[in-house]
Amino acid sequence: MVLLSVLTPVLALILCLVLGFVLVKSRLTEATPTSTEKSKGAAKGDFRPWVDQDLQDDTEVAAEGEDDWVDSSEVEDLAHVPYSPPRYPEEVMRQRSKDFYTLMNQRRSVRFISSEPVPREVIDNVILTAGTAPSGAHTEPWTFVVVSDQETKSQIRGIVEEEEEVNYRQRMGDKWVHDLAKFRTNWIKEYLDAAPYLILIFKQTHGILPNGKKKTHYYNEISVSISCGILLAALQNVGLVTVTSTPLNCGPQLRLLLKRPANEKLLLLLPVGYPATDATVPDLKRKSLNDIMVHI
Amino acid sequence: MVLLSVLTPVLALILCLVLGFVLVKSRLTEATPTSTEKSKGAAKGDFRPWVDQDLQDDTEVAAEGEDDWVDSSEVEDLAHVPYSPPRYPEEVMRQRSKDFYTLMNQRRSVRFISSEPVPREVIDNVILTAGTAPSGAHTEPWTFVVVSDQETKSQIRGIVEEEEEVNYRQRMGDKWVHDLAKFRTNWIKEYLDAAPYLILIFKQTHGILPNGKKKTHYYNEISVSISCGILLAALQNVGLVTVTSTPLNCGPQLRLLLKRPANEKLLLLLPVGYPATDATVPDLKRKSLNDIMVHI
Repeated sequence: MVLLSVLTPVLALILCLVLGFVLVKSRLTEATPTSTEKSKGAAKGDFRPWVDQDLQDDTEVAAEGEDDWVDSSEVEDLAHVPYSPPRYPEEVMRQRSKDFYTLMNQRRSVRFISSEPVPREVIDNVILTAGTAPSGAHTEPWTFVVVSDQETKSQIRGIVEEEEEVNYRQRMGDKWVHDLAKFRTNWIKEYLDAAPYLILIFKQTHGILPNGKKKTHYYNEISVSISCGILLAALQNVGLVTVTSTPLNCGPQLRLLLKRPANEKLLLLLPVGYPATDATVPDLKRKSLNDIMVHI
Repeated sequence: MVLLSVLTPVLALILCLVLGFVLVKSRLTEATPTSTEKSKGAAKGDFRPWVDQDLQDDTEVAAEGEDDWVDSSEVEDLAHVPYSPPRYPEEVMRQRSKDFYTLMNQRRSVRFISSEPVPREVIDNVILTAGTAPSGAHTEPWTFVVVSDQETKSQIRGIVEEEEEVNYRQRMGDKWVHDLAKFRTNWIKEYLDAAPYLILIFKQTHGILPNGKKKTHYYNEISVSISCGILLAALQNVGLVTVTSTPLNCGPQLRLLLKRPANEKLLLLLPVGYPATDATVPDLKRKSLNDIMVHI
């Protein structure tokens, strides 16, 4: 009994220490991307090495929200105007829906890109088209950095390949390395300085109001991804090719290289050009309508 | 001294209880969407009420990753085939890029949707078109649930409006409620049973392999959002309208209503149809090319 009463505080102390340790550990795991930008490889990177920390929908906001992507400022400032877009007869709709499907179904991710120049005006129009996407509260939280400068393209290639080599050598297991040797897939990305244009798509995690305060960018990652879908359609429509890539762990370095502000995070990198004359693609199939659609 | 030695275990116990409470609370906040499905409003909802827990890129994976959305299984199983898409003369490219921009620039989010029927074949083609999007490791991690059944549409409306009322009444501040009264914006979503079709887009956070194991769906949220961008382009191409919505906190209920498996999370809900004859849209402008593009 005496022993027990002596031990009680000791046991309680040990319990406290254990609890405290677990607590501190769980707090660390929760830390925000911004605060761990420097140490990302060490913290989150180790258990989800394939997820660039930049690739999280880190909308920065405090209170209000909306489901259909419009906020009070829009309602408050803007008059409503009639909207009557062109209407097609049913037969025309059927044909247009079929033609657009045929066009888009020819799209493939292409890693062999010709260095042949592409008219700049076409790229401008493609970016303008991407900018017509809807966005949470009409914040248009995207920046498209179009790189045609050869030196900058080489620097981008250098950064991506360096990180990729680490990914391939350290972040993937032996099985993966074995597969790499077998299929000669590696971290070399020739298209990054061959393609006439690299389009780096940044999401703005927040904006800046005239009074200097942060402006909430609702659902910025989904918005920017939707915008990229429209961009891919626009590229396909003019016969250009690309490969959708998310350079693993390169976001912060590329952001600094391209002098983008801290509220912008790299989402995707698209090398854009004509396909090389000897371009090949894996002979893959797409799922059938029944595999992707459920009708109720 | 005697008092102190009597009090020590009591103090230690109190400390333990406090630490334990904080710990349990932080664990709750971290819990996965699945385990907090029921209590979501209470936990995460309170500090980021506008973020549906479903709206996180919860790719479920352990080790490997890829930057350009192809994995070894693809390389291993598939032969490479030549790829030579149609090539347009420069003048045609310019014109096509301009025409597609003009078409897409007419797109607006429309909340006034006619109940007039729309040919089913057109919807099928639009979904097929969305299914041509690229996806991480070609996993095609999307399910499009197309609802035309009136009873199901009404149930969806019921679920969305009920949650919306809570959002508007409890999750937004007094200022917001004041704004609502002023502009008559509220939680009533007539388009949800008026539109001939509701398209509910689910992201599959993982797949199931033939051996029953989980299949990694890399970057599933970005992939499905890109697919939605292509879907919006396909709808615009045939003269149909929609409004991009992310029903706040409704994901789990709608998933159960539509009998979707647990690995599918609601990303977006699109009511689809012709615009109502008296449809209006806020008179908003889009950013200029210089505001969204940087050329290097």
